[in-house]
Amino acid sequence: MSNASETPAGRRSADTRPGGRTADVRRRVLTATEDALIEHGFAGIELPVIARAADVGKTTIYRRWGSPQALVSDLLDDMAAQSVRATHTGDLDSDLQANADLIVRTLGHRRQGRLFAALVAAATHDAQTKRALAEFYRIRVDEWSTSVADAIDRGEIPATTDTTAVIRYLSAPLYYQFFTTAERLGDGDARRAVRATMAALGAGVFESS
Amino acid sequence: MSNASETPAGRRSADTRPGGRTADVRRRVLTATEDALIEHGFAGIELPVIARAADVGKTTIYRRWGSPQALVSDLLDDMAAQSVRATHTGDLDSDLQANADLIVRTLGHRRQGRLFAALVAAATHDAQTKRALAEFYRIRVDEWSTSVADAIDRGEIPATTDTTAVIRYLSAPLYYQFFTTAERLGDGDARRAVRATMAALGAGVFESS
Repeated sequence: MSNASETPAGRRSADTRPGGRTADVRRRVLTATEDALIEHGFAGIELPVIARAADVGKTTIYRRWGSPQALVSDLLDDMAAQSVRATHTGDLDSDLQANADLIVRTLGHRRQGRLFAALVAAATHDAQTKRALAEFYRIRVDEWSTSVADAIDRGEIPATTDTTAVIRYLSAPLYYQFFTTAERLGDGDARRAVRATMAALGAGVFESS
Repeated sequence: MSNASETPAGRRSADTRPGGRTADVRRRVLTATEDALIEHGFAGIELPVIARAADVGKTTIYRRWGSPQALVSDLLDDMAAQSVRATHTGDLDSDLQANADLIVRTLGHRRQGRLFAALVAAATHDAQTKRALAEFYRIRVDEWSTSVADAIDRGEIPATTDTTAVIRYLSAPLYYQFFTTAERLGDGDARRAVRATMAALGAGVFESS
């Protein structure tokens, strides 16, 4: 896998990661969970089916995970741990652009887009998944907030800037378009999201009161 | 029902609407569909169950709608037809504020929030529902775009402003917070969405190229 998305890099290539057999079982189970979500949504996650697809004993799945909710929570943990690091180019506009481009690539990627849609859908029906998804986004937003913190350190924007709010505002129009329209996300959308966020920053919208 | 949300006003009160028996059947069936979506999500929409809940013959349901997708599409049509009109206060900031407040009330309302979450979730798994949802949002965004068009007519903002983009950018951070965090939407979120949108407008972000 490449850095072309917000999510798993290398889960399938056991060679490149440490951990031995336990880690290998987890990798295969999470890949099967991801595949099931993409193909059928949350309702498609049946433990015996995941066990078969992952070539793992049913007992192992029931003992280590025990429920579809636990599988999805663990998948989200793994996605957060493996997700792409924020850029630190020394220029806030460029860092935000890199983040917006990453979101457009992720949601526009056929499998990744379906995965995110399935995760958001699953979270609407289940409290444990909702918490796990919120934690995933908290980690992602915190990671990219560091490029906003850089800009504070450079004195480009006020120290009172709510860095989390900046990253959320950048992401929001791209997600909104993805979920509520039939229009494909493109580079122009990423650019507009960056411009809108920079304008709001300049107007002091994100300064904590 | 009141104007407290983006969706159905009065579907349950047969007295206040014309249409007779056919309209009454539709009203009962769509209410049952809405209830099923809120309680169980898309998977909960089984035609015999809807027939029973709506006190309508199974034959009628199968003949007039025929599938869960068709029921959800018809519900979205009805929601669009009955949704709250845009305000025209003569001041763009106030009109955008009214729109943002409406979204916060709708998504923050327990049943309405679950309904929208269930609709977005359903759309991620089904192409017909995806089209119907996109059409619902197109109608909603077009309706509220008229308050942006007012501001163009008054000469407050350039005639080249993409009115649809303005309304989408206003809605986006509220939906993003609703779907990706566990934080409840509040008045401060609506206010910030308005300020961010006005700042982006002022910076020319929504001018068509």
